[in-house]
Amino acid sequence: MVKEKDVKEKALELLSERGVTMDHLVELVQFLQQDYFPQLSVEDCIYNIDKVLNKREVQNTIITGIHLDLLAENNHLDEPLLSMVKRDEGLYGVDETMALSIINIYGSIGFTNYGYIDKVKPGILERLNDKSTGKVNTFLDDIVGAIAAAASSRLAHSKWGNQD
Amino acid sequence: MVKEKDVKEKALELLSERGVTMDHLVELVQFLQQDYFPQLSVEDCIYNIDKVLNKREVQNTIITGIHLDLLAENNHLDEPLLSMVKRDEGLYGVDETMALSIINIYGSIGFTNYGYIDKVKPGILERLNDKSTGKVNTFLDDIVGAIAAAASSRLAHSKWGNQD
Amino acid sequence: MVKEKDVKEKALELLSERGVTMDHLVELVQFLQQDYFPQLSVEDCIYNIDKVLNKREVQNTIITGIHLDLLAENNHLDEPLLSMVKRDEGLYGVDETMALSIINIYGSIGFTNYGYIDKVKPGILERLNDKSTGKVNTFLDDIVGAIAAAASSRLAHSKWGNQD
Amino acid sequence: MVKEKDVKEKALELLSERGVTMDHLVELVQFLQQDYFPQLSVEDCIYNIDKVLNKREVQNTIITGIHLDLLAENNHLDEPLLSMVKRDEGLYGVDETMALSIINIYGSIGFTNYGYIDKVKPGILERLNDKSTGKVNTFLDDIVGAIAAAASSRLAHSKWGNQD
Repeated sequence: MVKEKDVKEKALELLSERGVTMDHLVELVQFLQQDYFPQLSVEDCIYNIDKVLNKREVQNTIITGIHLDLLAENNHLDEPLLSMVKRDEGLYGVDETMALSIINIYGSIGFTNYGYIDKVKPGILERLNDKSTGKVNTFLDDIVGAIAAAASSRLAHSKWGNQD
Repeated sequence: MVKEKDVKEKALELLSERGVTMDHLVELVQFLQQDYFPQLSVEDCIYNIDKVLNKREVQNTIITGIHLDLLAENNHLDEPLLSMVKRDEGLYGVDETMALSIINIYGSIGFTNYGYIDKVKPGILERLNDKSTGKVNTFLDDIVGAIAAAASSRLAHSKWGNQD
Repeated sequence: MVKEKDVKEKALELLSERGVTMDHLVELVQFLQQDYFPQLSVEDCIYNIDKVLNKREVQNTIITGIHLDLLAENNHLDEPLLSMVKRDEGLYGVDETMALSIINIYGSIGFTNYGYIDKVKPGILERLNDKSTGKVNTFLDDIVGAIAAAASSRLAHSKWGNQD
Repeated sequence: MVKEKDVKEKALELLSERGVTMDHLVELVQFLQQDYFPQLSVEDCIYNIDKVLNKREVQNTIITGIHLDLLAENNHLDEPLLSMVKRDEGLYGVDETMALSIINIYGSIGFTNYGYIDKVKPGILERLNDKSTGKVNTFLDDIVGAIAAAASSRLAHSKWGNQD
């Protein structure tokens, strides 16, 4: 059995290597929550993002998604998968499917936030979507949006009710 | 076995009784597709919306959701369900869960559109969300957004590839 | 805002009124886990079932689903929804959709358990499916199966790794 | 834009290379439907399986999943992803997540069939799960089960009602 600790470490390492920091995630959560909790502290955001990142399902998705991005970036996938992932083609939805598994953990109230952030692309999401850099972030951008949406759902649950 | 025809008829009847017309749905699809297919014809929209409305899963969701709205509107639900549905409470996500089952039929590429439209609330969605009318549209507004998002996904599939 | 405590109390009350006890849930979890953790204690089962029942998403689903069952049982739904819910028709899938939202909270590893238990119908599930009693348990039987599957997923996470 | 035709061809090619034939899929559908449609013809099964395989979402999932299996089989994934995929670890659920996106296309009535078949492992599924062969079919076995479950849902829709 793969050690829990190794999975989490690898997930955080990959996020960091791909240029996604805790600051970026905090910024996204604040963007999503500004209308509901305008006084939201950075500590509160970090606490909830951390809880999301502690979930094994989330770690597995991060690791699998970034691997696929890297394989595409280095041309180590066969066609037509290579082109679909590289260009983040409109009809390729495996990245959204994987992102959804992150959101589902905190219930359906996160769908809206995920869809909104994925369309408006605030903060780090704009850079992750910039195809001119040569980087492939087809999976990563959906995963980052999903982590922020999940942390927002968790926050709503903890502000409005119980949540362990 | 309930007749297929009766289920569809009832679903369309309920949408109409709650003030949702084909024109409203067309407007939402055009809003979602304006950046991708600016020349999109009304006929194209209607054709794809119709295909979505022909799906049994969609009809079942429409009928069940609007029933719950009506039961809440007439105070025929027990507490605390009554208050949660009436106020469309933030932690009540059964409406989003049901909407998602409509979007899933055309694949994960529709999530983003659903979330976006649900947040921005263009066209009919603004009116459906107006709590001051005394009407309860907690389920209906998510269902209408999901139908438009599903029709947009179907449209993308048919423009870019095959779809029967 | 509806009080958290009231939602949980109502959910447990409804389960109990419909004849579903903690013993029934424990029996289902043990059935699902017998091949993996044959020495599983009753306390361990209860602990994990409790954690599932503490989730707001689960409580909302229980309350909404059992309400729909009761409305159908008392003929307080319009046709054709009434017949579809009463007979648990094959093409009516809103019950499965709602059950899935319970399973998703503990990740996708619970799907298999849910499907299996729903087909084999061990323990309380057989009685809940007995249409000859006059009771309508169309939503409840899927919800009970989903709670057991979710508790099993939670158990697997806690035995094999971290889970808070 | 990747050509529709190329995606379908690649998906069928990969299934065939991994030893999954139409006969295997027909056998699974008949297994799932024996209690409902005992007289089900092979032609009917093939027709419905074909419709499932024509869906772009299904083709994308087949291609992505089998690629991940092959990368693991050839040790071309980094740790700990490599070990998780190779051993089909209990807490790794990305394969189930991807399978679910296939089932969702035909509505929630397919969940049960998917879970059941995944647990009982009839026909080809037993061989795909045999870890002693050196082959890695972690994604493929869930995908094959999902295709059979989706074809069964489609069949139910077409026997009991309309479905285009």
